[in-house]
Amino acid sequence: MAHPVSPLAPKDYPELPEVAGVRFATAEAGIKYKNRTDVLLVAMDPGTVVAGVLTRSKCPSAAVDWCRERLAGGKARALLVNSGNANAFTGKKGKESTAESASYVADALGVDAGEIFLASTGVIGEPLAAEKFAGVTKDMAGRLGSGPWMDAAKAIMTTDTFPKVATATVEFDGVPVTISGIAKGSGMIAPDMATMLSFIFTDAPISASVLQGLLQPEIDRSFNAITVDSDTSTSDTCLVFATGKAGVPAIVNGNDPRATVFAEALGDVLHELAMWTIKDGEGATKLVTVNVTGATSDKSAFRIAQSIANSPLVKTAIAGEDANWGRIVMAVGKAGEPADRDKLAIRFGEFTLAEQGERAPSYDEAATSAYMKQQELEIGVDIGLGSGTATVYTCDLTHGYIDINGSYRS
Amino acid sequence: MAHPVSPLAPKDYPELPEVAGVRFATAEAGIKYKNRTDVLLVAMDPGTVVAGVLTRSKCPSAAVDWCRERLAGGKARALLVNSGNANAFTGKKGKESTAESASYVADALGVDAGEIFLASTGVIGEPLAAEKFAGVTKDMAGRLGSGPWMDAAKAIMTTDTFPKVATATVEFDGVPVTISGIAKGSGMIAPDMATMLSFIFTDAPISASVLQGLLQPEIDRSFNAITVDSDTSTSDTCLVFATGKAGVPAIVNGNDPRATVFAEALGDVLHELAMWTIKDGEGATKLVTVNVTGATSDKSAFRIAQSIANSPLVKTAIAGEDANWGRIVMAVGKAGEPADRDKLAIRFGEFTLAEQGERAPSYDEAATSAYMKQQELEIGVDIGLGSGTATVYTCDLTHGYIDINGSYRS
Repeated sequence: MAHPVSPLAPKDYPELPEVAGVRFATAEAGIKYKNRTDVLLVAMDPGTVVAGVLTRSKCPSAAVDWCRERLAGGKARALLVNSGNANAFTGKKGKESTAESASYVADALGVDAGEIFLASTGVIGEPLAAEKFAGVTKDMAGRLGSGPWMDAAKAIMTTDTFPKVATATVEFDGVPVTISGIAKGSGMIAPDMATMLSFIFTDAPISASVLQGLLQPEIDRSFNAITVDSDTSTSDTCLVFATGKAGVPAIVNGNDPRATVFAEALGDVLHELAMWTIKDGEGATKLVTVNVTGATSDKSAFRIAQSIANSPLVKTAIAGEDANWGRIVMAVGKAGEPADRDKLAIRFGEFTLAEQGERAPSYDEAATSAYMKQQELEIGVDIGLGSGTATVYTCDLTHGYIDINGSYRS
Repeated sequence: MAHPVSPLAPKDYPELPEVAGVRFATAEAGIKYKNRTDVLLVAMDPGTVVAGVLTRSKCPSAAVDWCRERLAGGKARALLVNSGNANAFTGKKGKESTAESASYVADALGVDAGEIFLASTGVIGEPLAAEKFAGVTKDMAGRLGSGPWMDAAKAIMTTDTFPKVATATVEFDGVPVTISGIAKGSGMIAPDMATMLSFIFTDAPISASVLQGLLQPEIDRSFNAITVDSDTSTSDTCLVFATGKAGVPAIVNGNDPRATVFAEALGDVLHELAMWTIKDGEGATKLVTVNVTGATSDKSAFRIAQSIANSPLVKTAIAGEDANWGRIVMAVGKAGEPADRDKLAIRFGEFTLAEQGERAPSYDEAATSAYMKQQELEIGVDIGLGSGTATVYTCDLTHGYIDINGSYRS
């Protein structure tokens, strides 16, 4: 069942530059979908290091288990991703399937299975027939190329209505370093790790341990700060591969000032991919930024922001373009975090709706209602108790979400 | 905007007996709705005691604050309930409004303001014009009666599509004791106290402290075990009034064996009202019982059951009559509670879908799909780690929920 493309889809896409040391190909393995690519094979040059953040689900997919075991080694030569089947909750068969999948990649590329990473996305609970990769891995290995990245982004889509790519470049001593990434994700998106698949490739020379150290805080500000439906996936995977091909001295220490510059650019790519994910949230018609200030701590602010961003009543009000700020009060109240009703202030964009525990004297229903018609909205909540702040991004809850999820498997 | 009556509405209603010492009347005060009653005044004889459980929201309504102050006294002579306005997040005006509302009741019934209880339900953030009660309280006081209870249940409805009543009778030494209750609630229903309004009346002679002690565990098994949308109301209120008019010796000790019998009957009434609330969940077409067993503790089982019952993906799958048990795996995984994927078993009704971490060999898609067409479904999840159990009740998530909540205020 095809669903209409999100109204928040990008009007045009950037041309992603090639990343030295990274080549890829896609194929149609017929795992679930017909007449579209569903496998991505990425080959990386010797010396490539990897960092990653994986789902905190207690029921992770077999591919997540596979990656977790290999991340400790910090080295990568290949990535195989399929859409259409998550290889999650597939028991011993799932584990065997990952080993078999990797063996096809090892054969095709002549690399060690310990340096092969796997990701699977799609239906949970169906065994993944790894033999479907047998027919395509050698062929893909024979036609690896350095672009176009859009093909890679398309092959990993499930209920996504558009492919997601982002890129950034930093210069060290005049030498450009490229960071390019792709992502998929639309439903089962909640901030407890990425709740999605995302793969970032860079030619930066950087040690795996420094890269891992830089990654987690950037994830927290991007993928971990988004929610479509409060549902956390079994398959969340964000992997960053660094080939080291850029002609600059390696970053081997987190205190290297270039690490900060690199982390910022990496954060920009992750943030952009996270925003595309929310903009492609199942049924989404609006992007909502929830800014909480004045909480007793940043963590408390984050929990309050999550409570607002996950509330079905807040999200349906936004879908209905209704400035129903009473539901924000409800969501603050249910968060379980310190809050004092009589110090609370709420605004939508520039419009103050409530302050000191009641409707603001300046509240203008007509002006606020007009604001609600925008595609990108901001909800500001000041708790009035401290200096804790947090930002969480979400989308509205519409009939489209019900359409997509009431019939996903069929 | 009128919404279609829930397909899960009762086919017929029980005739609620009168409760000695309780009289009531309803009126149209024109608070928000037109051509329907929106105020309920209940007068109780001297000697009536009260127990109650109120929302744990950090942003409670003014009426909840009012009740919390008075519950400690344990005595009640009157209850005033209005629908159409929650008097929540209304600041100092809200507090003044409760005092003014109570003063009209005090005048009309000649009772002390310290023994008057108030509840308001409806839109949050709009000041409640208490003067609207001025015109109706004296009139209501002049025509108090002991029935029909259906009128009382109707006056407190908001987005409810049917009135909710339940009754039970116990006998002590051949003397009947009546427990009758009404409730309202449809959206903003999540288990952190009742998330609704419910008022129970009994002629049992029982001390306020014993009544309060009996109430909390029964609430935990009824109203605190239901969820429509994971959103907790600012106005949750469950009050139990006991007039003591039944001709039996008073229950003044929790160890009195009659306390257990009474608590069980009270629990039955609360449970029935809670079930009607879920069956009238906004947009609901199916009642879902989530039974979790084998968790490391009852609390852990409850959190896992909540995670399943609150998951939009689980609830939309049920709306689509899709036995998408992969989403149950997801919800167990995200609950943050101890779980071992490879010990998990999942069944829908009598049909085992998954066991030992993968699809059950006996899994029968056709039979399970047929089961999913029933109006009342059971999801069974065995965690396989311990002996903790819990039951949570929920409904499906349908287009009806979006219809109702995308345009509530307008």
